[in-house]
Amino acid sequence: MDNLHRIEKDFLGEKEIENDKYYGIQTLRAKENFNITTIEISIFPNFIISLAKVKKACALTNFELGDLTEVQKNAIVEACDMIIDGKYHDQFIVDPIQGGAGTSTNMNANEVIANIALEILGKKKGSYNIIHPNNHVNMSQSTNDAYPTAIKITLYELIFKLQDSLKILRDAFKNKAFEFKDILKMGRTQLQDAVPMTLGQEFKTFATMIDDDIFRLTTAQNLLKEVNLGATAIGTGINTKPQYQERVIKNLRCVTGTDYYKANDMIEATQDTGSFVQISAMLKSIAIKISKICNDLRLLSSGPRAGLNEINLPPMQPGSSIMPGKVNPVMPEVVNQVAFEVIGADTTISIASEHGQLQLNVFEPIIAYKLFISINMMRRAFESLADKCIKGITANPEICMNNVLNSATLVTSLNPILGYEKSSAVAKEALKSGKRVYDILLEQNLFSKEELDELLQPKNMVQNYDKI
Amino acid sequence: MDNLHRIEKDFLGEKEIENDKYYGIQTLRAKENFNITTIEISIFPNFIISLAKVKKACALTNFELGDLTEVQKNAIVEACDMIIDGKYHDQFIVDPIQGGAGTSTNMNANEVIANIALEILGKKKGSYNIIHPNNHVNMSQSTNDAYPTAIKITLYELIFKLQDSLKILRDAFKNKAFEFKDILKMGRTQLQDAVPMTLGQEFKTFATMIDDDIFRLTTAQNLLKEVNLGATAIGTGINTKPQYQERVIKNLRCVTGTDYYKANDMIEATQDTGSFVQISAMLKSIAIKISKICNDLRLLSSGPRAGLNEINLPPMQPGSSIMPGKVNPVMPEVVNQVAFEVIGADTTISIASEHGQLQLNVFEPIIAYKLFISINMMRRAFESLADKCIKGITANPEICMNNVLNSATLVTSLNPILGYEKSSAVAKEALKSGKRVYDILLEQNLFSKEELDELLQPKNMVQNYDKI
Amino acid sequence: MDNLHRIEKDFLGEKEIENDKYYGIQTLRAKENFNITTIEISIFPNFIISLAKVKKACALTNFELGDLTEVQKNAIVEACDMIIDGKYHDQFIVDPIQGGAGTSTNMNANEVIANIALEILGKKKGSYNIIHPNNHVNMSQSTNDAYPTAIKITLYELIFKLQDSLKILRDAFKNKAFEFKDILKMGRTQLQDAVPMTLGQEFKTFATMIDDDIFRLTTAQNLLKEVNLGATAIGTGINTKPQYQERVIKNLRCVTGTDYYKANDMIEATQDTGSFVQISAMLKSIAIKISKICNDLRLLSSGPRAGLNEINLPPMQPGSSIMPGKVNPVMPEVVNQVAFEVIGADTTISIASEHGQLQLNVFEPIIAYKLFISINMMRRAFESLADKCIKGITANPEICMNNVLNSATLVTSLNPILGYEKSSAVAKEALKSGKRVYDILLEQNLFSKEELDELLQPKNMVQNYDKI
Amino acid sequence: MDNLHRIEKDFLGEKEIENDKYYGIQTLRAKENFNITTIEISIFPNFIISLAKVKKACALTNFELGDLTEVQKNAIVEACDMIIDGKYHDQFIVDPIQGGAGTSTNMNANEVIANIALEILGKKKGSYNIIHPNNHVNMSQSTNDAYPTAIKITLYELIFKLQDSLKILRDAFKNKAFEFKDILKMGRTQLQDAVPMTLGQEFKTFATMIDDDIFRLTTAQNLLKEVNLGATAIGTGINTKPQYQERVIKNLRCVTGTDYYKANDMIEATQDTGSFVQISAMLKSIAIKISKICNDLRLLSSGPRAGLNEINLPPMQPGSSIMPGKVNPVMPEVVNQVAFEVIGADTTISIASEHGQLQLNVFEPIIAYKLFISINMMRRAFESLADKCIKGITANPEICMNNVLNSATLVTSLNPILGYEKSSAVAKEALKSGKRVYDILLEQNLFSKEELDELLQPKNMVQNYDKI
Repeated sequence: MDNLHRIEKDFLGEKEIENDKYYGIQTLRAKENFNITTIEISIFPNFIISLAKVKKACALTNFELGDLTEVQKNAIVEACDMIIDGKYHDQFIVDPIQGGAGTSTNMNANEVIANIALEILGKKKGSYNIIHPNNHVNMSQSTNDAYPTAIKITLYELIFKLQDSLKILRDAFKNKAFEFKDILKMGRTQLQDAVPMTLGQEFKTFATMIDDDIFRLTTAQNLLKEVNLGATAIGTGINTKPQYQERVIKNLRCVTGTDYYKANDMIEATQDTGSFVQISAMLKSIAIKISKICNDLRLLSSGPRAGLNEINLPPMQPGSSIMPGKVNPVMPEVVNQVAFEVIGADTTISIASEHGQLQLNVFEPIIAYKLFISINMMRRAFESLADKCIKGITANPEICMNNVLNSATLVTSLNPILGYEKSSAVAKEALKSGKRVYDILLEQNLFSKEELDELLQPKNMVQNYDKI
Repeated sequence: MDNLHRIEKDFLGEKEIENDKYYGIQTLRAKENFNITTIEISIFPNFIISLAKVKKACALTNFELGDLTEVQKNAIVEACDMIIDGKYHDQFIVDPIQGGAGTSTNMNANEVIANIALEILGKKKGSYNIIHPNNHVNMSQSTNDAYPTAIKITLYELIFKLQDSLKILRDAFKNKAFEFKDILKMGRTQLQDAVPMTLGQEFKTFATMIDDDIFRLTTAQNLLKEVNLGATAIGTGINTKPQYQERVIKNLRCVTGTDYYKANDMIEATQDTGSFVQISAMLKSIAIKISKICNDLRLLSSGPRAGLNEINLPPMQPGSSIMPGKVNPVMPEVVNQVAFEVIGADTTISIASEHGQLQLNVFEPIIAYKLFISINMMRRAFESLADKCIKGITANPEICMNNVLNSATLVTSLNPILGYEKSSAVAKEALKSGKRVYDILLEQNLFSKEELDELLQPKNMVQNYDKI
Repeated sequence: MDNLHRIEKDFLGEKEIENDKYYGIQTLRAKENFNITTIEISIFPNFIISLAKVKKACALTNFELGDLTEVQKNAIVEACDMIIDGKYHDQFIVDPIQGGAGTSTNMNANEVIANIALEILGKKKGSYNIIHPNNHVNMSQSTNDAYPTAIKITLYELIFKLQDSLKILRDAFKNKAFEFKDILKMGRTQLQDAVPMTLGQEFKTFATMIDDDIFRLTTAQNLLKEVNLGATAIGTGINTKPQYQERVIKNLRCVTGTDYYKANDMIEATQDTGSFVQISAMLKSIAIKISKICNDLRLLSSGPRAGLNEINLPPMQPGSSIMPGKVNPVMPEVVNQVAFEVIGADTTISIASEHGQLQLNVFEPIIAYKLFISINMMRRAFESLADKCIKGITANPEICMNNVLNSATLVTSLNPILGYEKSSAVAKEALKSGKRVYDILLEQNLFSKEELDELLQPKNMVQNYDKI
Repeated sequence: MDNLHRIEKDFLGEKEIENDKYYGIQTLRAKENFNITTIEISIFPNFIISLAKVKKACALTNFELGDLTEVQKNAIVEACDMIIDGKYHDQFIVDPIQGGAGTSTNMNANEVIANIALEILGKKKGSYNIIHPNNHVNMSQSTNDAYPTAIKITLYELIFKLQDSLKILRDAFKNKAFEFKDILKMGRTQLQDAVPMTLGQEFKTFATMIDDDIFRLTTAQNLLKEVNLGATAIGTGINTKPQYQERVIKNLRCVTGTDYYKANDMIEATQDTGSFVQISAMLKSIAIKISKICNDLRLLSSGPRAGLNEINLPPMQPGSSIMPGKVNPVMPEVVNQVAFEVIGADTTISIASEHGQLQLNVFEPIIAYKLFISINMMRRAFESLADKCIKGITANPEICMNNVLNSATLVTSLNPILGYEKSSAVAKEALKSGKRVYDILLEQNLFSKEELDELLQPKNMVQNYDKI
């Protein structure tokens, strides 16, 4: 054996590991077995950190219960803290999509932590008789509790970040709502002219939609607080001391600062992926709304000449390789696509969840993968949308107003004043002549220009117009 | 004109209606235009009743505000009450899948109520100058607020019924959990032998899963309390008096007995279908769990000779047209299919919701249709599953126990007593010889039969075994 | 026993059957067990007929091989023929969604055919010693071959009908394409003004899309010709004579007039539902296209004043319960919803197919149900769309042309004539002044009105404009 | 300006570009605008190469038509060839998910090719007056034709590779089918004991399923041959010479070696994404089948003691961080997850396709991205499955046989010999006593051991048992 490598063994045989690597034989096997995405789990730093937090909480508990020495505990905890501080993430090399219900990810963490801890103690990597990946780092744990707990911690924290992104987007819409509060325009139902509203109200709607889901996200997020740490293999807590379950949760709370709690039915909590399904559904709900909003933005900014052209999106890049001067709504377009991705991910997650069998759902890796990817994409997309699109939107108030003056529905609004007979007559005349209703009303001296313009003030056309 | 028919008109022309029909010209047009499902909305009696409740609340409010006479109000309210009592449902004939965002359903209700009210007043059907479907029954409303409000009321009430069905199913599992609490068996992860548990715990898991979702359903249900009644066309409340919105909600609460409340942002509430998406997601979540449970039931009862055969499902029907005596797990199988239907419906609903445009989502009819169908199917399926399957399940305790005695993992449980070296040796011997671990332990005099049998008591093998 | 009933037995016990019913005990059990949709399989007459065709082909074969007497064969065949002629369909009462992989549907057919055959022979219903549902009608068959074969025959025939509906729709678009071939309009990419095209070309596109899928449907349809009749339980042909498989296919071809053929690998053909997945995918493909077309129709007809307003859909019904005169695009709207339904059904079918286990996919009933429902809905929807919408569409050529004259892209078309410098200057002027490009070109004397109008002829603006 | 950078301009302003970069200002804008996946398009080398092939075909055509000089043409063609040879791929930096319908990807290609070409000519990067990304490299093209054509070429070639992977997998199953052809086992329907078959037949089924889809992939692949190159912006061929369309296809055929052809209706071909939907559906179909196969493999190898245990998958890695010696079916598990990913991708692609509007589908980037990712994942997964799992599968013939001897269905097979009465009696006895049917048959002297063992030969139990 050269001194650039060490040998590690498991019950399937042995393997050479480069000496500067902190991971061990099981990580290496996993790397060879699972070559699916070409991505390594280190692309999810929050997840690596959450794994380290779980391992730290367990080590503290095992020490309290007398199963780890102080030396072992200190070394493991220090190793975990280094990972929590962002170090050694490049040692987490397994593919996020893997067989084995996350065992490879868990063993990657166990091996890396063991070897960092050994180094801290001045020992050679691989001296597992001193600190063993399974016997010490994974003590009182199974992949089946440590792994989903780390997923939940990760999601819990990512949801705060997603909410931050959503707030940026919501606020961008809110600001525009205020800016556009005096611009009267036609509301449309079924793409047909309906009744007047303000552009401010239209943008406020977008803010409200998002705001509702920021709130609902918190409801979903709270489902993640229930964890099965201490359940070990199938939830019966085999290989743990009776006091372990309560204590490890206490330590997890200390380490994370979040009030996670032990599931009542640990067997159920070990096999059920229901909370992940709920998170995915919530992400889909957000995606659906944002996609609808992007559709509207693209529609309202369509044109400039042969479209609705009520608003202008800021030009971000030349829009065509052939038509000079064309500018396209590229930011909403890319966000639409992120929404489609998230909706598709929900299908994947639903199918994966439904395929749980008996005491375990072996498809947690793809569930976690899709959730992490969806949230990360959404965050980037929503902040980009706010910064590179919404904040720069301008309105075309004359076009908006002209649509109102043009529309037969204007008469509907004047019904209470003119009476039904007169209004109908004006509407018919407008339809027949193609003239603007506004002009007919003036021609027929039904109003003076001043009266009519006053009537057409947003405050007179729309209830609560200023409640923006 | 014969006296078997009356003539009704709208701005597109006129039509003959049979005199004994309570619906009018717009219902008839809708019936001709939309021939999609071959089903009529009357298959959803809860929905018809909810429509009548909305119309009643509006009539009461319009009377309070002086816009309906007492005579008109009384007649409309009495007509609504008759529908609420289950009468005239056969007059609701439009296809639940329709264009126009529910206008046809709303007009079907307006016309039927108007004509019942006219009859109450001793007038001929069609005497709309006295009570007009639009001007009086639909007064201060638009399809865009009346229709989704009726959908929400319907769903709110159907969810209670769904919860009732889920409770029946949960309780059936709970009872079996108690019945099976002393049957030791192998837990399985990834379909591979893991560690012992009781059959009681396995069934309790099913009860817990369902219980969680009964609770979560209530969270989703509460989203339905926010309604947009009073929003009229696009949420700006056009054509209503300022006091109308608050009053109509008050009346809706009286009529329904539920504390519905007015949305803060009525424009958003009119176009957003987010709460329906949440309900659908919740239904999907339930479907996923129940499908997983059915998969497990089919697996555990597989055999009888060449399968797991740990439990027996009650035989419901001969299982084969060719293999005499074969009995199949038909009840879980049919429930699986209902789950697949509900998961597919969620795709439909998601797409429909995402397609909302500007101030309205015109695809509410299919959203409502799929939600009603899903809930109704689930209710029937879950109660059937409880009654015709779960209640009659029996266990094969010897097979269950034999799997434990056979399994190498038994040694794992004895690790703390035997020490690691001895256990490993026994495990290896078992693997090599094919003998039962139990027999080897006795042969090698590591335990007396009494000691070993005592150790194998569920209470000694499994933590909290009696917390069923 | 009264003489209004007869008693039938199976190995689970006995049941009373009303004497006028042709179905027997197994149908009755199924009816009690499966109460999911509230629908009976008789709503699919094509399927009932296909079942009878399969049974007829089998009876003919069993007679040829000497396993049925001529009397039995004749009676069974005559019974089948009566069902093929549309009689006795009301005796097919089981729920299309059922456990047992279709056994209940198959037994419903076996029992009804047996009892009709008995009646033909002048025997009492239930005299199964003479003609037995299993032993004679189902002879040499299993549900696992007879049922999927009947599904395939049904789908094969329904696809012709779907193609007929698609052809009606395609032709409606083609006619409009010809009608609109001289109307110049702005083409749009990303909802932004692009370059000129004709409205005829836009409508021809719709026809082409549909035409492609009519053709592709035939490819998918051909997959259905491979059947597993003769496979019996799992594909090994147990309980059949060696010559049976080839002969029964020959008879099936005679009975149906279609060249069905025996699968090469009968075990695979018995468990695989791949061809149904392909059909479903094809239906989804069509749904996606038609939904896109409906979206476009709604967009192009948006307005009338505050929208694109390039075309007018025929008004089918008053569009609003509150806004008089509003007309909505109800036909495209309802067709969009059918498309969403079909897309959701594909999710259901995909999941059901993926859940096949070992030698059978027990979820064929929901696969068939969803496919039948999807095709039937599509047929109704597409014919309605053609008749009640496409055929009545009119264009607004001035609006279309004005968009062209307005648009800066007009300059792009004139680039080759004006040179890049001049064109750019004109485009900038148009943008700055808000004037029509057309007017600027005339003002600056770059063209005479005659020249310009000639240039703006469709034939000069668009390649191959007349290839409609 | 330092000499490490150059300045590039477009109509939105100017930007500094590092001098060693071959991409230009529009690529840089796109990089800033679209930060969604953190991936760059260079992860799809086939796609980069296809883009270069399209550009090469266009340059050749433009030269033939006299629109490029020989010098320009030669430089562009040489630049394209270098990219086709795998050089400069690191210059393709835009995010695959992007707004603008692929314009950024197209411009990335145009800019990189222009600058390589300039370098070939000994000119400085950015000397666009000599070779301009738009005017020369993109000459006679639009993103709307060049981009989807490159996607089609990529998919066309990737499908061959996918077929290669599928063939490896199919052959692995075929080999096992042959190896296992004499192992008799119980077939199962609905997870219940059905009738005997061989393990060889079971594995052959898997090979057949895959084989069918290899063939069907070719049908789908052929749809990709129809391209819209020459359509430019919307299909009207604006900015191209009349001979261009036919010539460019001829050149594309030369460059690619594949017989691509021009779409009949270029406007339709430009907006329709139907062929991508078909490819996605085909991928989903494969995913469904492979997932079903993986489910079966996991089921058949379940145990070893408390499961079916008919086959053994080769152990790839220790299966548990807690249960020593446990080995899990990790390869099928990871492939299941890839299947779920592909099914979810189909949802995304369907929604994206349905959202095309008017003359373009702006969501092509995510469609291409998901298709490329799905195919790449599937290829890796299928080859891994073959190599690391299928090839190493061993059978447990005694367990398989014992299930047959145990099963009551054995009697069914002996029916023709024993007669129905005797068989029934034996079956009942087996059920009552729990004894093996085999033993009862011997005890009752119904057969000699030799006779019975002969009868139980696969060749006597199963039709065509050797047609493997």
